Amino acid sequence: MPEYPTALGASSRDRIALLGHDLTDEVMGKVGFGELAFWLASQRRPTAGETRVFEAVLAALADHGFTPTAIITRLTYLSAPDSVQGAIAAGLLGGGSRFLGVTEDCGRFLHQVLATVTGEHPLDDAGWDALALAAVHARREAGAFVPGLGHHVHKDGDPRTSRLFHIAAEEGLFGPHLSLFAAIGRVHPEVLGKTLPLNGAGACGAALADLGLPLELLRAFALLARTAGLIGQLAEELRDPVANDIFLSVDLNNKPIPPSPLGITAA
Amino acid sequence: MPEYPTALGASSRDRIALLGHDLTDEVMGKVGFGELAFWLASQRRPTAGETRVFEAVLAALADHGFTPTAIITRLTYLSAPDSVQGAIAAGLLGGGSRFLGVTEDCGRFLHQVLATVTGEHPLDDAGWDALALAAVHARREAGAFVPGLGHHVHKDGDPRTSRLFHIAAEEGLFGPHLSLFAAIGRVHPEVLGKTLPLNGAGACGAALADLGLPLELLRAFALLARTAGLIGQLAEELRDPVANDIFLSVDLNNKPIPPSPLGITAA
Amino acid sequence: MPEYPTALGASSRDRIALLGHDLTDEVMGKVGFGELAFWLASQRRPTAGETRVFEAVLAALADHGFTPTAIITRLTYLSAPDSVQGAIAAGLLGGGSRFLGVTEDCGRFLHQVLATVTGEHPLDDAGWDALALAAVHARREAGAFVPGLGHHVHKDGDPRTSRLFHIAAEEGLFGPHLSLFAAIGRVHPEVLGKTLPLNGAGACGAALADLGLPLELLRAFALLARTAGLIGQLAEELRDPVANDIFLSVDLNNKPIPPSPLGITAA
Amino acid sequence: MPEYPTALGASSRDRIALLGHDLTDEVMGKVGFGELAFWLASQRRPTAGETRVFEAVLAALADHGFTPTAIITRLTYLSAPDSVQGAIAAGLLGGGSRFLGVTEDCGRFLHQVLATVTGEHPLDDAGWDALALAAVHARREAGAFVPGLGHHVHKDGDPRTSRLFHIAAEEGLFGPHLSLFAAIGRVHPEVLGKTLPLNGAGACGAALADLGLPLELLRAFALLARTAGLIGQLAEELRDPVANDIFLSVDLNNKPIPPSPLGITAA
Repeated sequence: MPEYPTALGASSRDRIALLGHDLTDEVMGKVGFGELAFWLASQRRPTAGETRVFEAVLAALADHGFTPTAIITRLTYLSAPDSVQGAIAAGLLGGGSRFLGVTEDCGRFLHQVLATVTGEHPLDDAGWDALALAAVHARREAGAFVPGLGHHVHKDGDPRTSRLFHIAAEEGLFGPHLSLFAAIGRVHPEVLGKTLPLNGAGACGAALADLGLPLELLRAFALLARTAGLIGQLAEELRDPVANDIFLSVDLNNKPIPPSPLGITAA
Repeated sequence: MPEYPTALGASSRDRIALLGHDLTDEVMGKVGFGELAFWLASQRRPTAGETRVFEAVLAALADHGFTPTAIITRLTYLSAPDSVQGAIAAGLLGGGSRFLGVTEDCGRFLHQVLATVTGEHPLDDAGWDALALAAVHARREAGAFVPGLGHHVHKDGDPRTSRLFHIAAEEGLFGPHLSLFAAIGRVHPEVLGKTLPLNGAGACGAALADLGLPLELLRAFALLARTAGLIGQLAEELRDPVANDIFLSVDLNNKPIPPSPLGITAA
Repeated sequence: MPEYPTALGASSRDRIALLGHDLTDEVMGKVGFGELAFWLASQRRPTAGETRVFEAVLAALADHGFTPTAIITRLTYLSAPDSVQGAIAAGLLGGGSRFLGVTEDCGRFLHQVLATVTGEHPLDDAGWDALALAAVHARREAGAFVPGLGHHVHKDGDPRTSRLFHIAAEEGLFGPHLSLFAAIGRVHPEVLGKTLPLNGAGACGAALADLGLPLELLRAFALLARTAGLIGQLAEELRDPVANDIFLSVDLNNKPIPPSPLGITAA
Repeated sequence: MPEYPTALGASSRDRIALLGHDLTDEVMGKVGFGELAFWLASQRRPTAGETRVFEAVLAALADHGFTPTAIITRLTYLSAPDSVQGAIAAGLLGGGSRFLGVTEDCGRFLHQVLATVTGEHPLDDAGWDALALAAVHARREAGAFVPGLGHHVHKDGDPRTSRLFHIAAEEGLFGPHLSLFAAIGRVHPEVLGKTLPLNGAGACGAALADLGLPLELLRAFALLARTAGLIGQLAEELRDPVANDIFLSVDLNNKPIPPSPLGITAA
C-alpha cells in the first residue's frame, strides 16, 4: 500500500496541524493570509520584510480592471450562476502565457542568466550592466523578446516597477534577480535602439524569484492575486452588472459571413 | 455604445488606480493581502479587527491535507504540467456543495433565520436559544440537515470553531450570525437527541456573514483560501511527488467488469 | 487494497478493450462518434434510430453563435493561447443553469410529473393533456416557471422543437417525456393566459429522457454538443479573430466610478 | 461599433442557421455528430471517408480507463456534485502536454518535417524512408524525443496504429503525414538502436493532419473524444462509485512529515 507524505494539513479527532504547527493556537488569528500563502508554498515562515514584498507583489497583480480574465469570470457567472467555483476557475484559465505569464517568464529568464555566472554575482552596477548587456544582446541575436520589457499603456514607465524596487530595497531584499532586471532597464536602449519600460509583471517575477519562491510556481502567485481580484469583479457584478451588456454587445453585432472552408492541406 | 462602470482597477499612462486609491502609493507595501481581498469584495477598507477575523477564516479553510481538491490539483499537474492555471482551476472546481459549500450554506441559513426576526435581535443567550430552537425544529420537520452541524473527524468539537468564536469576540465582531450559530450548538441536542459538533466550515460562514460580506460569495472566500492551499500542494508535489503513485494505485487496481446496460426507463 | 471496477477502457500489452469489445476490431471504423458517446454513457449500444435522435439533439445544441460560452472560450484563448484545454474548459464552465441547464431541468421536471402517475401512462392526447394541465397548474401555484417554455428569440415557436418531435416520431421514439412535453405546449395557454413556445433545449431534454439516458447527465450531453461548437469557435477565431476586439470594446469603454461600500449588514 | 463576423450559428425569429445551412431542415436528423464536429472545425462538410477516419480517431482517444483525467472527473463530481460542467471541465484540464498532447505534438512534428521538402513529396517507401531517417537523426542530434514513438504498455505495437493505418488506406486518406509516420516506424531502429512502437496518439495526430484539420487544434479533437469518455466515467460513477474509495485510499494513507523549507535561492 503506498503512503503519501505531506507536511501540509493533517487532522486528528481534536487537533488540526498545518505545516507542523497547531492551526488553531499558532496560525488562526496570528498569521496573515499573505504570510500564510508564502509559508504554504515555501514551507518556511517568511520574515516580516519578505511578507511585505510578497504582499506588494500580490497587490500589484490583483486586478487590472476589465482584463480578459475579469470579463470571462463575469460572463461565466452570468451564464452559470449556480457555480461560483466555475466562474472563478474560468477566469483563472485566462491566466496564461499572454496576460499573466510575464511574471513567470521574466523570473525564469533572469534565473537562467544568473545561472551562467560562475563564481560571485556582480558587486556593483557596472558589473550588473555588463551581465545585462550580454543577456539582451543574446536575446536580440536569437530573435527573442526580453521578458519584462515593454507595456502597452505605461510607455514612460510602469509605476509598479519603481515602487516594488523601492519596497524591496527598504526590506533588504533587492537580490540578484531584481539587480539584473534593473540593469536591463538601464542598458537595453543601447542594444535595442529604443527605451522601453520595465513592466510591473516582470518586476513581480524578479521580486518573487529573489524571495526564493519556486520558478515553476511564479505564475501561481499571480493567479492567487488574481483570485482576490476576480472575487472583487464578482462582487461588483452582483451590484453593477455588466456581463449581459457585454454579451449582447457581441451577439447583437454579429455579422453573418459565409463559411470559408479550410483547404485540405491547410495548417 | 455601452459603457462599463467599475470602481476596481483602472490605468492611465502614468498611474494605476485601485478602488479609488493610487495602487503604488497607497496600496503596495501598505495593505496586506487579506485586507486587500476584503476591500476588493466589499469596496470598503476593513478595520484591523475585521481583517484579523477574515484572515483567521482564510487560515481555517486554506488546506486540509489530501482532500479531493488537493488530489485533483496534483493529478492535473501530473497530466498537464504545461498549465499551472489548469491545475489550480481544476482543484477549485472541486470546491462545490459537498466539501467547501458548507461555509456558504451555513451563512445563508443563518441569514434566513435572522430575516424572520421582526424588530430587535435577541439580547441574551436565552433569546438566541429560543430562536435557534425554533430554527432547528423547523429544519427537522422539513427533513433537512442543519448546515454547520456535524463533522466526520472532529466528533467531540471542531477546534476551529471555538478558536474563531474567541477571535471574533476579542475583536468585538461576534454578531448575530455567530450568536445564532453558537445557540444552535447549545440547543440542538434537545431536538435531535444527540450532540453534534459545530463544524469549522459553518463557523467560517457565520463569521463572514457577520463581517457583512455578500452571501452569494461566501463560497468564493473559501476558494480564495483554498487557492493558497493548492499552491502549497503544488509546491510539495514538485519536491515530494505523489500524483503518479495515486494514479497507478487506481489504474493498476482496476477490475474489469462487464458492461451493465441502463434500462430504457432508467433515471 | 481497494479495487476499482470499470466496464469502460482497459488495456493489455497487445489489446485495448472498450465496453467489453475490442476497440480496434469492433469499434474503430465501425462505430460513429455519436453512437459511441451514447454507448459509453448507457453501457448499451444504441439502435440506429436511437443514434439518429441522439445526434439530432447534439446538432441542436452544438452552437448558437456568440453565446457567453463562445465568447468565454475565445477570450480565454486570446489570453492563454498556450492551453487549448483551458479555453475549452472555460467555455464549458459557462454551461450552467441559465444557458445550458434547461435541457436537464426540463428532463427532470417531466420525469417527476411522470413519476406521479400510478399505473399506465395516458393512451391518447386527451389523457396527456389532463396530466399536463395538472402539472402546469401545480407549477403556477408554486410560483415556479415551467421548464422548457419560452424563448427570447423564437417567440412564435422554436424550429428545433417541431423538427425533433418529427425525428423522434419517425424513429418510434416519441415516448412519455416527449408526449408530456407536447401536451404542455397545447394546454399551457389555458393556465398561463398566453402562448409560449416550447423551446429546443427543453425538447432535447425530453428526447434524451425518452432515450433512457440518466437524468443526472442530461446537462453533460449538452456540454458534449457544445464542445464541438467551441472547437468551431476556436477554429474561426484562428482565422477571423474577434476576441481582442471584444476585450477592447469593454476595456476602452470602462467608466470609472467611486467605490460603493457594502454596508456591514448587507447581503 | 465593432462587428463580429461568424459563419457558425445564427438565429432569427423563425430560423436557425449553422454554417450557412438551415439547422433543422439540413442538419438535424441528417448529419452525424462526428461529421458535424469536423464540419464546425473546418467549415467544410467532410466526405464519408473523411468522417470515417475522423470518427476512428475519436474512438481511439475517447477512453483509456482510469487515466488521470478520468480520476479527476470522478473526484470533482464527488466533491461538487452540483456542477456537472465543473467535473467535465476539470477532467479536460488534465488533457495537457503529457497525456493528450502527443496527438498535437506528433502532428506538428510531421508537418514541420514535410515543410522542409521542396517540390514534390516522396513517391515511394524508399523516398519516405530517406526523409524519415533524416528527421529521426536530426531529433536525436538535438537530444529530443521523436513524438509518437514509444508506449509504456503496448511495447510490441499499439493496435490502434495499425488499425488506423488500415482505415485511412481504405478511404484513400493515407496522406503525407501518415506516410512519414509509417516510415519513421520502419527506420528509427537504425538510428536509435532499438525498436519502439508507433503509438496510437501519434497516429491519430498524423491522421488528423492528413485530414487537413488545423494543427493548433489537434489537441482539441482529443479533448472532444475525451469529453465523451468522461461522460462515460460519470455515468459509471453514478452506478458503481469509486471516487470516495480513491479519496480515502490517499487520505487515510497520508504520512505526516516535517516541513522542508525551501532555501532562499532554491528554484
